[in-house]
Amino acid sequence: MSILNKDRQILALSGGVGGSKLALGLTHCLEPHELAIVVNTADDFEHLGLHISPDLDTLMYTLSGLSDTSRGWGLADESWGALDALARLGQPTWFQLGDRDLATHLARSCQLRAGTSLSTVTAELCLSLGITHPVLPMSDDSVRSFIQTGGGELSFQEYFVRQHCAPEIQGVRLHGIEVARPQKVFIEHLKSPDLAAIIIGPSNPFVSIDPIIKMPGVAEMMRASTAPVVAVSPIIDGDAVKGPAAKMMAEMGMTVATTSIAKYYGDLLDGFVIDEKDADHATALRESGLAILVVPTVMQTLEDRQMLASQVLDFSLSLSKTHDHSTLSIT
Amino acid sequence: MSILNKDRQILALSGGVGGSKLALGLTHCLEPHELAIVVNTADDFEHLGLHISPDLDTLMYTLSGLSDTSRGWGLADESWGALDALARLGQPTWFQLGDRDLATHLARSCQLRAGTSLSTVTAELCLSLGITHPVLPMSDDSVRSFIQTGGGELSFQEYFVRQHCAPEIQGVRLHGIEVARPQKVFIEHLKSPDLAAIIIGPSNPFVSIDPIIKMPGVAEMMRASTAPVVAVSPIIDGDAVKGPAAKMMAEMGMTVATTSIAKYYGDLLDGFVIDEKDADHATALRESGLAILVVPTVMQTLEDRQMLASQVLDFSLSLSKTHDHSTLSIT
Repeated sequence: MSILNKDRQILALSGGVGGSKLALGLTHCLEPHELAIVVNTADDFEHLGLHISPDLDTLMYTLSGLSDTSRGWGLADESWGALDALARLGQPTWFQLGDRDLATHLARSCQLRAGTSLSTVTAELCLSLGITHPVLPMSDDSVRSFIQTGGGELSFQEYFVRQHCAPEIQGVRLHGIEVARPQKVFIEHLKSPDLAAIIIGPSNPFVSIDPIIKMPGVAEMMRASTAPVVAVSPIIDGDAVKGPAAKMMAEMGMTVATTSIAKYYGDLLDGFVIDEKDADHATALRESGLAILVVPTVMQTLEDRQMLASQVLDFSLSLSKTHDHSTLSIT
Repeated sequence: MSILNKDRQILALSGGVGGSKLALGLTHCLEPHELAIVVNTADDFEHLGLHISPDLDTLMYTLSGLSDTSRGWGLADESWGALDALARLGQPTWFQLGDRDLATHLARSCQLRAGTSLSTVTAELCLSLGITHPVLPMSDDSVRSFIQTGGGELSFQEYFVRQHCAPEIQGVRLHGIEVARPQKVFIEHLKSPDLAAIIIGPSNPFVSIDPIIKMPGVAEMMRASTAPVVAVSPIIDGDAVKGPAAKMMAEMGMTVATTSIAKYYGDLLDGFVIDEKDADHATALRESGLAILVVPTVMQTLEDRQMLASQVLDFSLSLSKTHDHSTLSIT
């Protein structure tokens, strides 16, 4: 039996690993018609003629149970024959293409080139992998994160994979964001009176969540929705569980603390979920007007994912909007 | 020391497996500046967004010593992770893409899409693989073999791989042949007074050699060249060593015999190399005006390849043109 009333839905916003873990937990708590997962595509890139969507892949592999949980990315039981042969041919190997992973990129690239939308390609890939909960790329338009550094701009994968996040970040430029149209079903959910909650996963705010919420109209629709917006902090005890979020924050002059995440999202949030280790921040955060849930947020096992998802869901559904945006006009 | 006089060159025309074996033998007899291998590209095709050049690949893998000699195609020590994953994604798997083989297709496709010519891409791939003898795709333009059957036309790979050559063939249509420009260096060799011999490998005449020699001007330049043209029969004792040549001949109403190959090439040939098992055809073939070499032509070991190449070379260099085409004007 569902925890949701009839016809109500949850929208989850996700980047890569952290967001996918929470999304997997949510799929264990909610029926396919009760959940839609919106995924960042601003770290998509072209490599060797392939359209690679790292966050979509991470989510699909996580939801289908095919991900390599020890390596932390890519597919389990992966092999590297193609990469070895690419090296032999003098081709770039800084982006580690697994043989099985390549199949995803080939299928996607081929269909995109034939004119199929990323949404449709993603739906077909999910169907093949037995994923029943809707996975929505944030947009069928191209948005690309560029990392601004003292040495100039780097594409996100150049920064993240090739340079191992070493360059000092000055800011993030989201190329194409001004004209990107949020994915159709995503907009429908945002506008729907049946939307019960919007859950922002513990993903990087600057390169995973910003691309989603900074598309024209999205933040406005989130504020206007009657559904509460709840974020799970990607920062625990002054560090990121994974990825460069903490390093980015420090370099951009932010205090590396869960409170900075809440401040960054600002009045978009109605609730905020922080880790037990950050319990001493709860009072100050509550005083700023946010509803706060303090729970263990490190997700190591499937049980951790289900438990956190269930707690975040209960917490979200218990909230009513703290701000009255009902008069905001959304086009 | 070379068997050729200074500055003289050999041109070898090749399809896939048979032609590559002879070409490998030739590379052991000739220095890189003494040999150029022209390869059929009419069975190239697009698959999953990749530009696949089966005959170029077979030749490159054979010359670099990377080919799988027991399987008879593709690379040795190949793995099939990508193909397994493609199957899981509901993608077509009738064309067996090995993981290492995929690297070649990715590198080639990516560069072609960036506007690099097939000649340049091939030269770069060969360089990476340590191949020092020039490998020339027959053209940088697209020529595609279509197999005409009672049930309509099939692309060559559709016929050859997907349908295992089962449909009865009525003819071959070489799409694009009328406007295909033979590769630049190929033309230079054909026109060169230093050309010492043109050797047609034991490849399928209809789908491997015809695409090369039916491009505008090629047959005329071959006839006009002072270099003798010598073909090695792909038919031995009434059957093909490999591939559908014999089946095609029977279905197109030809006698499946080495003599039919000589007749098919007609006055293009100055010399013809047949297998010992076909020795009883030698007299009749000689009476038709052809110089005939009877030797073992089945190439199972590297020694076989070198021996046949050496014999074919000696034979070719012993010939002078039987037809006087010296007055033919080539533009």
